[in-house]
Amino acid sequence: MNAQFLNELTELLGKENVKTTQAQLLAYSYDATANFQALPDVVVSPRHTEDVVAIVKLCDRYEMPIVPRGSGTNLAAGTCPTQGGLVMLFNHMNQILELDADNLTLTVQPGVITQTIHEYVESKGLFYPPDPSSMKISTIGGNVNENSGGLRGLKYGVTKDYVLGLTVVLPSGEVLTCGGKLAKDVAGYDLKAMLVGSEGTLGIITEIVLKLIPKPVAQKTAIAHFDSLDAAAETVSQIIAAKIIPATLEFLDNGTIQAVEEFMHLGLPLDLQAFLLMEQDGEEAQVERDVAQMIEIAKENGAIFTAVAESEAEAMKLKTGRRVALSALARKRPTTILEDATVPRSELATMVRAIEQIARDYRVQISTFGHAGDGNLHPTCLTDVRDAEEMERVEQAFEAIFDASLKLGGTLTGEHGVGEMKSPYLAWRLGEEGMFVMRAIKQSIDPKNIMNPNKIFAKSQKLRVVIHHGE
Amino acid sequence: MNAQFLNELTELLGKENVKTTQAQLLAYSYDATANFQALPDVVVSPRHTEDVVAIVKLCDRYEMPIVPRGSGTNLAAGTCPTQGGLVMLFNHMNQILELDADNLTLTVQPGVITQTIHEYVESKGLFYPPDPSSMKISTIGGNVNENSGGLRGLKYGVTKDYVLGLTVVLPSGEVLTCGGKLAKDVAGYDLKAMLVGSEGTLGIITEIVLKLIPKPVAQKTAIAHFDSLDAAAETVSQIIAAKIIPATLEFLDNGTIQAVEEFMHLGLPLDLQAFLLMEQDGEEAQVERDVAQMIEIAKENGAIFTAVAESEAEAMKLKTGRRVALSALARKRPTTILEDATVPRSELATMVRAIEQIARDYRVQISTFGHAGDGNLHPTCLTDVRDAEEMERVEQAFEAIFDASLKLGGTLTGEHGVGEMKSPYLAWRLGEEGMFVMRAIKQSIDPKNIMNPNKIFAKSQKLRVVIHHGE
Repeated sequence: MNAQFLNELTELLGKENVKTTQAQLLAYSYDATANFQALPDVVVSPRHTEDVVAIVKLCDRYEMPIVPRGSGTNLAAGTCPTQGGLVMLFNHMNQILELDADNLTLTVQPGVITQTIHEYVESKGLFYPPDPSSMKISTIGGNVNENSGGLRGLKYGVTKDYVLGLTVVLPSGEVLTCGGKLAKDVAGYDLKAMLVGSEGTLGIITEIVLKLIPKPVAQKTAIAHFDSLDAAAETVSQIIAAKIIPATLEFLDNGTIQAVEEFMHLGLPLDLQAFLLMEQDGEEAQVERDVAQMIEIAKENGAIFTAVAESEAEAMKLKTGRRVALSALARKRPTTILEDATVPRSELATMVRAIEQIARDYRVQISTFGHAGDGNLHPTCLTDVRDAEEMERVEQAFEAIFDASLKLGGTLTGEHGVGEMKSPYLAWRLGEEGMFVMRAIKQSIDPKNIMNPNKIFAKSQKLRVVIHHGE
Repeated sequence: MNAQFLNELTELLGKENVKTTQAQLLAYSYDATANFQALPDVVVSPRHTEDVVAIVKLCDRYEMPIVPRGSGTNLAAGTCPTQGGLVMLFNHMNQILELDADNLTLTVQPGVITQTIHEYVESKGLFYPPDPSSMKISTIGGNVNENSGGLRGLKYGVTKDYVLGLTVVLPSGEVLTCGGKLAKDVAGYDLKAMLVGSEGTLGIITEIVLKLIPKPVAQKTAIAHFDSLDAAAETVSQIIAAKIIPATLEFLDNGTIQAVEEFMHLGLPLDLQAFLLMEQDGEEAQVERDVAQMIEIAKENGAIFTAVAESEAEAMKLKTGRRVALSALARKRPTTILEDATVPRSELATMVRAIEQIARDYRVQISTFGHAGDGNLHPTCLTDVRDAEEMERVEQAFEAIFDASLKLGGTLTGEHGVGEMKSPYLAWRLGEEGMFVMRAIKQSIDPKNIMNPNKIFAKSQKLRVVIHHGE
């Protein structure tokens, strides 16, 4: 650590906003991703955009990597400082700045907790739909950097669909504002859209204008149990074919159901092959009709049990299985690796079966749950990072999963991001042309590569071995 | 025109797909933008992506500008070949390739007419919302390149919200595919979002995957007349504040109303200050309730006349005024210049009044209509390009309109694009930082600047003179 750099930083921010002790550095050496850890050189807390500008200019001068970090819930090592450098926190920049009811916008700083936004706008009869599972602790800045999804993605879209404006400190220290309280804007390239989901590799987001919509007046929750995966997948297809776009359409496979039952004793049959959680919101009459029709479709496809919640308490109960899925799985082995392969919705059953086969082929334990309506699955591997031999098989299994997803017209990541974990595989998805365009953009905006280095752009790429697994 | 280039082109495409006569070149020397005309060197019609690749490689070799062109309805000179070169048509690439009902996607070639898409998907009970006014003749490729809006933008968003995947021939001749039939994808930067609305400056789009939604089951149309602009604007604000997001919320000012009445004799009072067209779609009950509430809000704000259509024929009649607005204005003077300033919705009345004042200050004739719910106004100047003195005042008036829009937190263009016409003003909106990032992207992807040169990136920038007009 350059002493001169540290002095300048401390002078700028005050001692209380510059952390350098071993314990402090350790606390920001990892995020929610298994098997990635690296100490930063320093951890800082800017108080406003001007602080960020000054820090970025300093880092530019010293060619110091900058890793912006919300609450560190990232699942692809996107906030792990794998090249050291400066971790930037947004604990001081956590204010809701303005609710504009005329324009239905909310202006926030990046450090606001996602759930705080939900609660605040819903108290005004408004609605911010993106609901990543981590929303109780994740920050909106992290959500924007990762273009986070959530359970309501199918009907309402993801974070990028609700970002109207951004203030961004570029690697040069210049401040770029793009978008605003505008329903439409085609003045130049959509830089805002490019920045959302860029994982901190192009600049530091310091202010966000979000789009709000009216809060739906009614909501209803239902579940269906199936003794066959195909029946559940066919139910999903037929719901969409019936022109219903549910607010939530979530799926648990048998492994996840077993883990949930062991954990929560909900009375789920241990041989249940699939569990669907279905929710609709909107107008009262439409909600009633859609939920009734979804239940009917489930029954026609051989659902062995269905239930519709008649109260908020009942709804919470029905949602328990999906809500605790990850925790239930995570308690079974020392290490949990949550993946994010996404396929066209029509390929859901094929993909789940491919994952099952891959788990058998590589003798690893993988259970799958996720957003059935989106085709966004979360194959979750239960393993132990201390077992090097098993970890090698886990890695091979995930490569096979990526390969299977791409063969079905899917992608490596639906909502978690590339981070460092998936960067070696990104060219599999984007091709050399896509990588060329992305690298051209990155190099022209961040020529010194100080913005979250190693993320998205890999140190070394994996060769794609086309895998013929037992189908 | 290089003979060798022309020979290679003809060999590649066949004589019938290479136009070079003066009459043919003249036909593609202009688009729907007044006062811009320039002859291309050659006009070609590729038959498939491979043809486009070969043409682009040839143009790269000869450093020949390429101007992709749909139906030439562009209103910002975006498809005018102001630097000569090759105009590329998509008349052979006009097929609907696939409707995927399971994934609710439509795959199309760029030359498909927008309205053909509407009719095709609606016949299957599905819906493609973007409805630019030019949709009867515009192509989807043009819509994607311009990120076109339309009357349904407030509720349903614009073209970019419905583009899931793109195949693009890069200036190098490499083929980039991005996105796909996926509800979610965060593998790398959102290149697709950057390409939508890039006006042909980054590559040639040769295939598009569109997102569809279920067709709303019911729709209702209503109108309200106001003797004050403020009353109409307040009605718009209160409709949104009442948590109604109408499918359409359109506005005509007094000048437009007069022109419409002279043209169509609908019985509109000539002193009417504002006309609102309001539509809702969705569930029957919700549509009824929303329309009734919008009418009530209009009346509370002093509407002097309201009407609700009870049939499709009545709805068409109520919509006439808005539908013919541009034609009604255009017949009054030899030249019509349609502008596209967009402000936050709450600034609607302020902006309309600023436009009125500017028209008086510069002694030019400007009437305004547009998408009230979006804050997307179309100040329309009736003038005569042959009168150089008047044209100078027109240009000054538009500069003052851009300035007023930016002061209100608005933008230069909500849905028409920058093209060549607005390129000298773009830095007013984006600042030097925004221009730097855009130029960095453009230069790194298209180093020889062959892709639609002069568009978005100006030959010379206008200085912004902050104007203090009489408020």
